[in-house]
Amino acid sequence: MGSDDYFALVFIYVARMITTIGKRNVGVVINLEEEKKDKGKEALATLLDLVSDDLDKVNQTILLKMQSPVALIPQLAGHLIASGGKRLRPMLTLAASRLCGYEGDRHIQLATCVEFIHSATLLHDDVVDKSDLRRGEDTANAIWGNKASVLVGDFLFSRSFELMVEDGSLEVLRILSSASSVIAEGEVLQLVTANDTDTTEHAYMEVICAKTAALFAAACEIGGVIAERPKSECEALMSYGKNLGIIFQLIDDVLDYSAEQKTLGKSVGDDFQEGKITLPIVLAFRRGTDEERAFWRRTMEDLDQKEGDLDHAIELMEKYNALSDTIERARHYGQVARDALAIFPDTEYRKALTGIVDFCINRAY
Amino acid sequence: MGSDDYFALVFIYVARMITTIGKRNVGVVINLEEEKKDKGKEALATLLDLVSDDLDKVNQTILLKMQSPVALIPQLAGHLIASGGKRLRPMLTLAASRLCGYEGDRHIQLATCVEFIHSATLLHDDVVDKSDLRRGEDTANAIWGNKASVLVGDFLFSRSFELMVEDGSLEVLRILSSASSVIAEGEVLQLVTANDTDTTEHAYMEVICAKTAALFAAACEIGGVIAERPKSECEALMSYGKNLGIIFQLIDDVLDYSAEQKTLGKSVGDDFQEGKITLPIVLAFRRGTDEERAFWRRTMEDLDQKEGDLDHAIELMEKYNALSDTIERARHYGQVARDALAIFPDTEYRKALTGIVDFCINRAY
Repeated sequence: MGSDDYFALVFIYVARMITTIGKRNVGVVINLEEEKKDKGKEALATLLDLVSDDLDKVNQTILLKMQSPVALIPQLAGHLIASGGKRLRPMLTLAASRLCGYEGDRHIQLATCVEFIHSATLLHDDVVDKSDLRRGEDTANAIWGNKASVLVGDFLFSRSFELMVEDGSLEVLRILSSASSVIAEGEVLQLVTANDTDTTEHAYMEVICAKTAALFAAACEIGGVIAERPKSECEALMSYGKNLGIIFQLIDDVLDYSAEQKTLGKSVGDDFQEGKITLPIVLAFRRGTDEERAFWRRTMEDLDQKEGDLDHAIELMEKYNALSDTIERARHYGQVARDALAIFPDTEYRKALTGIVDFCINRAY
Repeated sequence: MGSDDYFALVFIYVARMITTIGKRNVGVVINLEEEKKDKGKEALATLLDLVSDDLDKVNQTILLKMQSPVALIPQLAGHLIASGGKRLRPMLTLAASRLCGYEGDRHIQLATCVEFIHSATLLHDDVVDKSDLRRGEDTANAIWGNKASVLVGDFLFSRSFELMVEDGSLEVLRILSSASSVIAEGEVLQLVTANDTDTTEHAYMEVICAKTAALFAAACEIGGVIAERPKSECEALMSYGKNLGIIFQLIDDVLDYSAEQKTLGKSVGDDFQEGKITLPIVLAFRRGTDEERAFWRRTMEDLDQKEGDLDHAIELMEKYNALSDTIERARHYGQVARDALAIFPDTEYRKALTGIVDFCINRAY
């Protein structure tokens, strides 16, 4: 680090100290956290850079393949897909293929399939019940209604399978159709365990492995399959993806209670408002007093929430280190993800994929 | 016909004459219609009889393959699948395979796939918007809510693809994934043209070809594919299925205005209440006076309905032969369906499949 960099860092540090005075629990560690965050962002930029030509082609394929004579389909799908997701899942397919030395172009269409499946689940997540309507609706749903979200999701899902069939690999089809079943199972499991403060960490992990990690795992594994790598390497990619997906969801669940959310254009406390039992809640509930558990039951199970409840919830999470321990759990899976990649040669792709583990964890800061 | 049968028929005829006195438009033709209806029912019984062993296996496979550690899935799926549908679509796969001389057992699992896709679309049809809630909810949805219907539908859909992948035929996968896309497109098209009295017969036909006929077509075509029959025969089965599906939907749309519905345990006028533009409405609207068109616009577009409107709607349909002409259209497609089968040897399977055309048309009586 040059002296200019050092000066800049000190400047940021002092400026942060000043602006954060009076805020809770930020204090002296902020400069370290900024560094971590930067490291995460750099890792994402590195990966983006490596796959950028391929990703352009994926974006073109997405636009091309969501076309339909029924205008509402590209309209609604475009609203979602163009709304600037990071394309993390398709990037994983692209990078995993290249890591395995793949030199063809099948990974473009298959990365598109992965993004279509992801988009279909997002659209289906939009669907609300009468009871939810009291709490307002989500984006695509608010504009076009429940039925449109479901049907356009079905279209993307079916189209994804058409594209896989066009690709012609039964092994890829097996991996992605099985992931799709597991995702649906995970979503139903989440539905039936919703608003239940008795949810164990084990049950929570089961849900996120299914609803989030399964697609990350499949996205990576198919990279090895099209490169015709041995089973051990395909499995290593699957393991990397699965652990990365777990991290991604753990940190997502932390972010919902973090002020950082605001900079991502999302609102803080959505999960709280829905009574969604994520790991921070599981930990705070289990570590809490009887009185505190009564608070969680009132707010999470009965959804009887009043002003100040969200702040109190965050206080309790901090009291019991529920957020920081969730991040610690994520670090554990990060280690497993890194080790899964260790059998691959130490190329720029392996470095980039390893870096993505940091990116996913450091989003939390 | 023996003299006992003749006596029985006269008895039924007289009894019907007595019970129908004072009812509209039934009169002297009732005995002919009863005969038609019986012919249809016989045709269904003949097919059922031919495929009954296979169908038992399909029912077992359905129960087995909808299992999941997440209890709500078999619970909700079972509620729908066990609720006594006719299993017409899987029966078509079974009979088409046997018509082609197929002697293996792949048709069992593939017929299960067809039923799963059908069930998934039914579950997704259950999903309602805020506006629909005013008019009450559908069955599965009323009990478990929108989200559960969507997610269990997704599960059945994904599971269906898993089963196809297990079967291993890319051609079957191509046919059924393409049908699934077309179905979703058709459902979205129906959504965007809903409540529009300007809908043309052409636009209506496009919707029903996609949302209903595509799965009938695919269900039949795959029978030829697994029997490894030449393209001309697979196409003939596809054409038979497509035309049968068109008939099925046309008659479904007639039945919604027929007292016959009541005997099927459904209520009359559901489509009317929703403002669903089916062919009987298209015909009555186009053949009507300005005043009558204003009536259709008020009831179908503005959904401003009052007591007596449904009766008036049926009167207008009768005035312009909208229901009987819809049945006439169905007869036309029936003729095409029969001719499509003509290239096959005249076996009991061909007879049964031809008979199903009569069954589908004569449901209207």
